[in-house]
Amino acid sequence: MKYVTGARCVKCGKRYDAVPDLTNCECGGILDIEYDYEHIRADVNKDTLRDRKLFSMWRYREFLPVEEDTKEPPLRVGWSPLYDAERLREKLSLKKLYVKDDGVNPTASLKDRASSMAVAKAFEAGQDTIACSSTGNAASSLAGNAAAAGMKTYIFVPERAPKGKVAQLLTFGANVISVQGNYEETFELSKAAIDEYGWYNRNAAINPYLSEGKKTVSLEIMEQLNWSVPDFIAISVGDGCTIAGLWKGLKDLKEAGFIDRLPRLISAQAAGCFPINRAVRENKALAPMEENTIADSIAVGVPRNPDKAMAAIRESDGITVEVTDEEIMAAQKLLGRYAGVFGEPAGVTGTAGLKKLCEEGIIDKNSTVVSVVTGNGLKDVENAIKYAGEPLKCRNDMNELKEEFKKRGII
Amino acid sequence: MKYVTGARCVKCGKRYDAVPDLTNCECGGILDIEYDYEHIRADVNKDTLRDRKLFSMWRYREFLPVEEDTKEPPLRVGWSPLYDAERLREKLSLKKLYVKDDGVNPTASLKDRASSMAVAKAFEAGQDTIACSSTGNAASSLAGNAAAAGMKTYIFVPERAPKGKVAQLLTFGANVISVQGNYEETFELSKAAIDEYGWYNRNAAINPYLSEGKKTVSLEIMEQLNWSVPDFIAISVGDGCTIAGLWKGLKDLKEAGFIDRLPRLISAQAAGCFPINRAVRENKALAPMEENTIADSIAVGVPRNPDKAMAAIRESDGITVEVTDEEIMAAQKLLGRYAGVFGEPAGVTGTAGLKKLCEEGIIDKNSTVVSVVTGNGLKDVENAIKYAGEPLKCRNDMNELKEEFKKRGII
Repeated sequence: MKYVTGARCVKCGKRYDAVPDLTNCECGGILDIEYDYEHIRADVNKDTLRDRKLFSMWRYREFLPVEEDTKEPPLRVGWSPLYDAERLREKLSLKKLYVKDDGVNPTASLKDRASSMAVAKAFEAGQDTIACSSTGNAASSLAGNAAAAGMKTYIFVPERAPKGKVAQLLTFGANVISVQGNYEETFELSKAAIDEYGWYNRNAAINPYLSEGKKTVSLEIMEQLNWSVPDFIAISVGDGCTIAGLWKGLKDLKEAGFIDRLPRLISAQAAGCFPINRAVRENKALAPMEENTIADSIAVGVPRNPDKAMAAIRESDGITVEVTDEEIMAAQKLLGRYAGVFGEPAGVTGTAGLKKLCEEGIIDKNSTVVSVVTGNGLKDVENAIKYAGEPLKCRNDMNELKEEFKKRGII
Repeated sequence: MKYVTGARCVKCGKRYDAVPDLTNCECGGILDIEYDYEHIRADVNKDTLRDRKLFSMWRYREFLPVEEDTKEPPLRVGWSPLYDAERLREKLSLKKLYVKDDGVNPTASLKDRASSMAVAKAFEAGQDTIACSSTGNAASSLAGNAAAAGMKTYIFVPERAPKGKVAQLLTFGANVISVQGNYEETFELSKAAIDEYGWYNRNAAINPYLSEGKKTVSLEIMEQLNWSVPDFIAISVGDGCTIAGLWKGLKDLKEAGFIDRLPRLISAQAAGCFPINRAVRENKALAPMEENTIADSIAVGVPRNPDKAMAAIRESDGITVEVTDEEIMAAQKLLGRYAGVFGEPAGVTGTAGLKKLCEEGIIDKNSTVVSVVTGNGLKDVENAIKYAGEPLKCRNDMNELKEEFKKRGII
C-alpha cells in the first residue's frame, strides 16, 4: 500500500503496521489509518480525478487503504447522486442545500461503502468468511457485497431488526443469527464467535478500514461540488462510525490539498437515544442510554466508536441536535415531497436535525449545507406506512371520485 | 426535436406530429416515435458517446424525443450497473451472463426511465400535473420524479398494490387513489379522470414517449457491453411496455449503425398470468387472463400495450416462458446468493424464465445472455420474508450458539 504509512490508536497513540486483519489497539482504543499525503498529492490531483471513467467509491484509489493489485469488489458502490435541492432549500430558508442520496447504493444504504472495503480487505487477508453484528444496514450490505464476491457471511442482528432487512440478508445467502437482546448483546456475541472461529471482522468499531470506506462519501460530495466547501454537512449518528468516516474523508482532502478549509458537522441523533451528542455537549465520557426511537439504524445506546465520532464533532466545531420520531418522520415526508428522495427514518435524521436547527435560528440562513441521506425508505416500510397516511379509496366510478375529491377539497 | 420525424400508429400506420401530449391513434392503436437515423448517425457515434461525462439515461440525448432546450428532470435515472455474473453463470451453465440491476434507480425500479421522460414531456406540454394508473412501480417512479421536479401527481393504484409501494408514493406527496378493483378497472378510472381534468397522461400504453424512456436500458446495456451484442436478453413482461421499449432501443442502435445484429428476447411471464406469451405462441389476438401471481408488477390480465410487445417478441425471434411463483422466488434467492442482487418478484422473473429455459435445454449453453432485474427486492418485503426462511435465533451465549450451529450442521 504505497500511500498508507500505518495505523495509530486514537486513545494511546501506539502505532501498528497496516496488516489486513487489524483490530483494536491492545489498550482497547480504535485505530486510525494514516497516509503519506505528500505521496498522494504527487500522484493525484483535481485534474487527474476529473478524467477518471470509474464512477464508484473506488474512483479514489489513492485515498483508500488497499494493495495496488487488490480487485474492486463486484457490486458498484458509491458515486451516489448529490441533488441541488432547490425546493427543499426554500422550505428551510437556506441559501443552498444539497441532498446526497446514498439510498441508491446496491443494498440501499451508505453502509455498502464499508462493506465493499471489508470484502477487499478480507480478500487481502486470504479469508473467505466475514462476520459482523448490525442493526440492519451493515448486515445487508455485508451480505450483498460478500455474496457478489463469493464470500460466506455470519451476521448477528438484534431481534428488533425490521423483518425486511433480515429477509434481504437471508436472500443474499447469509447465515443470520438473531440475538435475543439489544445491540450491545448482539455485538458481544458476534465478537465471541469471531474470536472462536477466526472469521474476518466487519464490525465498524473494531475494523479500522471500514470508516476508510465510508469516508468516500465526503470525497464524492466534494468532487460533486467541484471542491467548493459547504458550511455544514448534516448526518445521522448512531454507532459513530459514519460521521467519523465522513470527517476523515474531509481531513484527507485538506491534507492532500484538494480543499482549503473544512465544513462544520451537524451530528443528528434521535431524542430517544443520543449518547454521543450528550457526551460531546456535557464534555464527559460516554455513558450508555436507552434505545427509544423508530430510527432503528441509529438506535445505539452503547456506541462502540464514540472516540472518533466525538473527536470529529469537536474538531469540526460541530453542532449536536436531537430530533423526536415525529420530527424524523416529518423530515421523511419533506424529503420525499420536495426533493423526490425517500429515506429510511435513520437515513433522514440528518435532514430532520438540519430542519430543527434552521427553525431555531442556529444555522445562518446564508449557509450552504449538504444533508446526507444514509439509507433508502424501502428499508423500513412499516414506519413509512404508519406515518404516510392512507390513500383515497374509491370504486371505478367517476362520480364517486369527484365526490371524494370534493370532500377533501383536492380539486 | 431535430432527430424525431413524427409518430406512427402501430395498427393502422397513420402518421402524427410529435406534439408533447400525444396519446393513442384515433383507431385506438398505440403510436411509435420515429427518428431520422441518418441525422443521428451524423451527430453521434461510439467515440463521441465514450467521452460523455453524463452518466444517466439522458446520456443518449440524440435518441430521445425531447426538445433541445428541455432540461433533464432532477432525479438521476439510469446508468444502472451491468454485472458480469460469473457465479450465477456457473449455476446456469451458461457461457456468459450479465445482470442489469435496474433496482438501484432513484425510486428503485426501471420505471424511473419512463417517469423521467414523462416529467420532461409534461414540462414541454406546459403542464404541472401528471397522472397514471399502475400496479406500483410506475406510480412510485412518477411520484418521485415529479416531486423532485415540483410537479403534482394523481396516481391510481389497484387495491392489491403492496402497502410499501403505496407508502412510498404518499411520502412523495402524490394524491393516491386506491381503486377497489383489478388493474383494468384502475386503468379505466384513471383514463376517465385524465379526460375530465386534463392532466398529463403517464400511462405507458397510451403515451408513446414512455417506452422511449424505457429503451435507454438497452442503450446502456449495449454501451456497457462495448457494443458486443448478446445472444439473448431476458426480461419480465406484464403490461408489455417494458419489453417493447427494450426492443425499440435495440432497433434504434441497429438503425443508427451502433450494432450490426439484434439479440433474441426472452419474454418471461408468471404462470398465473401470461396473456401476451399465450397470444404470441398461439398466434391469436390477445385474450384477458386472471391475475394469479405474487409478482404484482407483472400481474396484468388485460395488457394495454400488447401490440408493441408481441411485435417485439416475434421480430426478435423471441422465446416465451412462464414461471410459477415458486420458481420466481427461487430466482430471487439465486440472484441474491450468487450475484448480490436483491430483486422484487416481478423484477427477477426474467432470470427465473432464463433458468427454466437453461434447464430445459432450450437455451444453448454457449450463449451470452443479459438478464434485466427491473425492480428492487425491498419493494415487496412481505413476499421476501415469506420465502427467505427464518434466521437462527439465539441468546447472547456462545455455548448456545455452538449448539445451534451443530444442530444445523453449519460449521
